[in-house]
Amino acid sequence: MNILVTNDDGINSRGIYELVLSLREIGDVIVIAPLGEQSAVGHALTVSLPLRVTEFHKNGDFFGFAVSGTPADCVKLALRTFLDEVGLPKPDIVVSGINHGRNTAVNIIYSGTVSAATEATVLDVPAVAVSLTSYHPNADFRPSAEFMKHFTPDVARLGLPRGTLLNVNVPPLPLSEIRGVSYTRQGASYWEDEFEKRMDPQERPYYWLKGKYILEDTDEDIDDIAIRENRISITPIHYDLTNYGFLEQLRSSWPKKF
Amino acid sequence: MNILVTNDDGINSRGIYELVLSLREIGDVIVIAPLGEQSAVGHALTVSLPLRVTEFHKNGDFFGFAVSGTPADCVKLALRTFLDEVGLPKPDIVVSGINHGRNTAVNIIYSGTVSAATEATVLDVPAVAVSLTSYHPNADFRPSAEFMKHFTPDVARLGLPRGTLLNVNVPPLPLSEIRGVSYTRQGASYWEDEFEKRMDPQERPYYWLKGKYILEDTDEDIDDIAIRENRISITPIHYDLTNYGFLEQLRSSWPKKF
Repeated sequence: MNILVTNDDGINSRGIYELVLSLREIGDVIVIAPLGEQSAVGHALTVSLPLRVTEFHKNGDFFGFAVSGTPADCVKLALRTFLDEVGLPKPDIVVSGINHGRNTAVNIIYSGTVSAATEATVLDVPAVAVSLTSYHPNADFRPSAEFMKHFTPDVARLGLPRGTLLNVNVPPLPLSEIRGVSYTRQGASYWEDEFEKRMDPQERPYYWLKGKYILEDTDEDIDDIAIRENRISITPIHYDLTNYGFLEQLRSSWPKKF
Repeated sequence: MNILVTNDDGINSRGIYELVLSLREIGDVIVIAPLGEQSAVGHALTVSLPLRVTEFHKNGDFFGFAVSGTPADCVKLALRTFLDEVGLPKPDIVVSGINHGRNTAVNIIYSGTVSAATEATVLDVPAVAVSLTSYHPNADFRPSAEFMKHFTPDVARLGLPRGTLLNVNVPPLPLSEIRGVSYTRQGASYWEDEFEKRMDPQERPYYWLKGKYILEDTDEDIDDIAIRENRISITPIHYDLTNYGFLEQLRSSWPKKF
């Protein structure tokens, strides 16, 4: 199995390192990831600047290509041009992560980790985004990496519908304490955020985003609730954003002329 | 009616200028938009840098606040902190645009214009994204602006479900030649894109994204097809990305242990 790995925390982060070491036991892994941290970049593409690719080595056991762009750039560049150019095979699956922090509920729309997997889906390659739901600086990525070693071949074997990817969130526990897998839906939890106004040394104002995550949901089948109950949350997501229910209502009762 | 206007082409673009002049005839308009062009930024948020706000004047008849960030930053900053701080009212509706170029099909996921409207929706303010489906440098934004003068009060009056926004695309024609409004779904058209490899003056390679848009759809109820038939396309979109159909299948047939 050929596996393409990317992320949004950057190629030098611990999450991608543990993921690659683990997935290498089950397939041939190619790493193409952002040179720098790209958190909360959403599905950004770099269109007004060129991209650079450099080789990246770490600890004698990790090699990858670092891209001067976003997670979506990495996947598009790899699948559309770069892998062919350097004579590497097209992947059977793309795995994006392991993100340092949860990508559940509204976080999904801001997530570079998810956007990289979405870009693979747009380009018709099955994809999984994986996040560890802890912001602790010393969070242990190994249980998530171990889980992905088991789950990635399942995804390749069972297959995904066209246009759909899986968004995996793993609670920060040893595998022995995780109570299985839940197939979940995207929750309605949100950030109660604001901008703190500060003054720079020249007495000019600037604004810095800060926020607190509000756990809004209670239902068992919601991503954040599965995590709270020490289960791995797996949510199938797609990029057809049409609200079909409301579309019917628009057609029946909204104006058609102007 | 209080209207907050933003965009992704930047506060100095022609699209936002025409939109503001037109909407001012029906309400009190506040402009908070990116200082620079932010095309294809997706739903990016600026989390690792502070934001700056500067006042922006143009032609003696346009005033707004320019933000050193993304479209989603502008809306979040405005609604969470800035409007309160400067004593301006919370808007009844957010209008994002007029984008220079179509935001249909897969373009929706890359669109800063749509992401600004989505951010308003996340923060419970009704929102509309509006794009002119022409890349011509001299494209005329006035028909789209005129349409939004009629449509914005309709949206405010008829209301949107929580979590849903409207994505409007207008063909590049005089209003008299536009054949009405279609309520549409997001199409499956896509970019056949690749990266052109070039050498810089130091003989180091760089990659530049280029692509051709492939019109995949044929059904009348698709966004791009409405446009092709000279109608205004209005697609209701939401940010619950769960693929509910496939979720049922996962629950019934995928592994629950690992």
